[in-house]
Amino acid sequence: MGAKEGKAGKVSFQLKTAKGTRDWMGIDMNLRESIFSNVADVFKRHGGTALDTPVFELKEILAGKYGEDSKLIYDLADQGGEICALRYDLTVPFARWLAMNSTIQNIKRYHIAKVYRRDQPATPVRLILTDTLQAVAKGRMREFYQCDFDIAGTYDAMIPDAEIVRIIVDVFEALGLREDITIKINHRKILDGLFTVAGVPEDKIRSISSAVDKLDKSPWEEVKKEMEEKGLSPEVADKIGEYVKLSGGRELVETLKADAQVCANEDVKKGLDDMELLFTYLEVFKVTDKLSFDLSLARGLDYYTGLIFEVVTPLSSADGFNANKTKSSSKPKKSKDNDDDRSNDNTIGVGSVAAGGRYDNLVNMFSPKRQIPCVGVSFGIDRIFTIMKQRHEKEQQEGNATIRPNEVEVYVMAFGGKTFNGLLLERMSVADQLWKAGIKAEYAATVKPRLPTQFKQAENGGVPLAVILGEDEVAAGKVKLKVLGLPDGHPEKDGRLISRDDLVSEVKKALQK
Amino acid sequence: MGAKEGKAGKVSFQLKTAKGTRDWMGIDMNLRESIFSNVADVFKRHGGTALDTPVFELKEILAGKYGEDSKLIYDLADQGGEICALRYDLTVPFARWLAMNSTIQNIKRYHIAKVYRRDQPATPVRLILTDTLQAVAKGRMREFYQCDFDIAGTYDAMIPDAEIVRIIVDVFEALGLREDITIKINHRKILDGLFTVAGVPEDKIRSISSAVDKLDKSPWEEVKKEMEEKGLSPEVADKIGEYVKLSGGRELVETLKADAQVCANEDVKKGLDDMELLFTYLEVFKVTDKLSFDLSLARGLDYYTGLIFEVVTPLSSADGFNANKTKSSSKPKKSKDNDDDRSNDNTIGVGSVAAGGRYDNLVNMFSPKRQIPCVGVSFGIDRIFTIMKQRHEKEQQEGNATIRPNEVEVYVMAFGGKTFNGLLLERMSVADQLWKAGIKAEYAATVKPRLPTQFKQAENGGVPLAVILGEDEVAAGKVKLKVLGLPDGHPEKDGRLISRDDLVSEVKKALQK
Repeated sequence: MGAKEGKAGKVSFQLKTAKGTRDWMGIDMNLRESIFSNVADVFKRHGGTALDTPVFELKEILAGKYGEDSKLIYDLADQGGEICALRYDLTVPFARWLAMNSTIQNIKRYHIAKVYRRDQPATPVRLILTDTLQAVAKGRMREFYQCDFDIAGTYDAMIPDAEIVRIIVDVFEALGLREDITIKINHRKILDGLFTVAGVPEDKIRSISSAVDKLDKSPWEEVKKEMEEKGLSPEVADKIGEYVKLSGGRELVETLKADAQVCANEDVKKGLDDMELLFTYLEVFKVTDKLSFDLSLARGLDYYTGLIFEVVTPLSSADGFNANKTKSSSKPKKSKDNDDDRSNDNTIGVGSVAAGGRYDNLVNMFSPKRQIPCVGVSFGIDRIFTIMKQRHEKEQQEGNATIRPNEVEVYVMAFGGKTFNGLLLERMSVADQLWKAGIKAEYAATVKPRLPTQFKQAENGGVPLAVILGEDEVAAGKVKLKVLGLPDGHPEKDGRLISRDDLVSEVKKALQK
Repeated sequence: MGAKEGKAGKVSFQLKTAKGTRDWMGIDMNLRESIFSNVADVFKRHGGTALDTPVFELKEILAGKYGEDSKLIYDLADQGGEICALRYDLTVPFARWLAMNSTIQNIKRYHIAKVYRRDQPATPVRLILTDTLQAVAKGRMREFYQCDFDIAGTYDAMIPDAEIVRIIVDVFEALGLREDITIKINHRKILDGLFTVAGVPEDKIRSISSAVDKLDKSPWEEVKKEMEEKGLSPEVADKIGEYVKLSGGRELVETLKADAQVCANEDVKKGLDDMELLFTYLEVFKVTDKLSFDLSLARGLDYYTGLIFEVVTPLSSADGFNANKTKSSSKPKKSKDNDDDRSNDNTIGVGSVAAGGRYDNLVNMFSPKRQIPCVGVSFGIDRIFTIMKQRHEKEQQEGNATIRPNEVEVYVMAFGGKTFNGLLLERMSVADQLWKAGIKAEYAATVKPRLPTQFKQAENGGVPLAVILGEDEVAAGKVKLKVLGLPDGHPEKDGRLISRDDLVSEVKKALQK
């Protein structure tokens, strides 16, 4: 496949990564790592413990967990021995781990790792994006990151759920995106109860729920049509429509609590009590400004049993992109299918950047004797990356970019006249002095480098400081310290001579370490 | 496979991870992360840039790179589309990336990631180890970490090679193991030249080289026998024996340079010039005390073209373990086969913790038009982990353990009399105050927790501080700050009352932040 005979009889390969995978390098890599580090800091602040599971699991562990999407699981070849498959998400391995480790009764665990899905690439995106965003945007990735925080254990109602919502706000605050998000919340019990009150037969509740879930991208008429196709009468569908159009804050909880008809349903009542508690706790955390209690939120996965939520931001929706990028274009259309979804993660809805909920029965699927209630959130790291990258490119255009391909702080260079020997050992010795002090330093790996070449290398790496060695200065135990990138005419433009003895302290001062 | 019918007709699975894989959690995970973070800091100090490649590659990229070991490659199932396989190491993906990205002429890249090998588990280890070490030790892992730093680019001789050796010393210094390692170095050109001088025909050089490589675990007589079986005369073998028994420091370079017979060979001469330069540079870095120029070091992989090295430590060799653990046992035997290797990484020799060398032609295998010289090191993270874990367990026994399952700094708790309502909202509010200040805080997720339960939870997590809320104190705007784990009679044992306004600054002071 793709292999060609090269010139000297050698086989030359088609040099590429496998479909739906990519290399991460340079600024992209550092931006990704900085997002992970911010997110992990928040997770640790809330007592999170990291769990790392193998990249492949026994096939039977994954079987029967993902419904129709099971066809997207990557199998390992049968080379003798166990039959394995690459993990599809981080939730099932977590449930497997909980079921296996019977001494664990409760835990806050986080996991940031790659998952694998044999997804088809999307059709090309219609939006106008920069080249780099296009690269990320042009289709679903088959290898992509998930970033999960889950609280497992039997606790009093809504206390862990409230902390999960708080963690969501803290993560987006740490990324500088708090102002840009809304957390849509709903409750499976309320939704199921309302369907029952409206007259949906019990065996149709899940499929009607998945129709309602499409309201974020389809108009009510289409959703109603789907419900009728699924066997509801127009009257029942309209009754559902009355409720699922509602959204608001705590006052909506009170409104529904005053509705005797719906509160006669035990599930609705129980769900509303939960929501009331949740609002009480989140008022203490001062994050209710970020909440929208939205009765149309249903979430696709079957295993949710209580609170569900999804974090949306105009920065990630197709309309948001249109609004930013093509203001002059004709009316942006609401997209009606997933092909416009630029995400790599189809567990999270279109335009959303995080999602999750309570799932009290999943561990039980692995271990009939164990029942460990769980609530958790999964962050759509690829979409968050796209937003952060867009912001970084804007900063770069404005000259405020802070992310560099490497972190070198000092470039050690040398110059001299006709007898210049390159001062290599002296450059090494200065680097040695800096490295010992924990300072990130580099020098040209040539015996006699030219001065402009050295400046060019420092500039390419965005290195902030140069230490410059001349023969006379070295003999006198001195070096020149120069801040790079200063404008012409700046008093420090030419740098200043300092003693080798003061080098580390002067460099630290210049770096404001 | 292994699936059984459970009680209520449910299928109950064999709950395990796939053979040769494990979950990482708690103290193991945090110790591993702390090793990675130390290592990555050193890599960044030397200008390293992180590269992340996909976990699977097109099968043809891996084909023909690993000789006999290719049978250990994990294939993905053919589910239509491209034929892929899990990566076997990090070097081939790096070479593939270099070949693909033709604008890159030089780079210092590092990569810390899992690799995959369908290796057979070793026979049980004979040594006496603690249970946890046994778990890691009992066989080769099929999923394990590699941790590589490579310098690619055309530079003056031995300058990047010297920095790689310096990085090795810096890494083990950062891990507190500098005193425990020796870096064995040799040069492929010297070795090949010596073989030629001794009378080995050119087509036998690689196979004789691999016989010599066994000298670290087999006596000379056995190695000589293998050479004779491979077609050498006893005289030629003995001639080789004279040289490969030599080891020393810079003086050995000088001794060989004075040997007119071997220096008549161009390869030997070139290799000795390289070694002389290397010693000159490493004297500047003050690391020559860690070097042993060892002519018996040959390294298995075919692709090395210049400097080769291997880092050994008595803490990792079987003898070292015996010496530490079973002082009273009868003479420890040198192990003669790989089955005693407790490592997960068969790229690195028995008893060694890092290895590498110069490989100037690997990129060229992918891209006939590109020739990028490379030199790099791979750290045996699993063995380093085992050593560090042993040390940690010793510290734990001595009460000096510093690694905890999570990083919570403050446990917020409450107590009260008969009318005690649990002060949940107040505990949440205090946690909110701490989180906002970046302090890691936790509280019991129950409405009315008992005080002993709260202390127990804090103690289990090794949390250093408690903030304790009582009804009267809360009403007065005060809380109690208590350092946990103080001995009886300590003046601060009972904690002290502080104002809510001073909480953050007092906590930071107590944590010495």
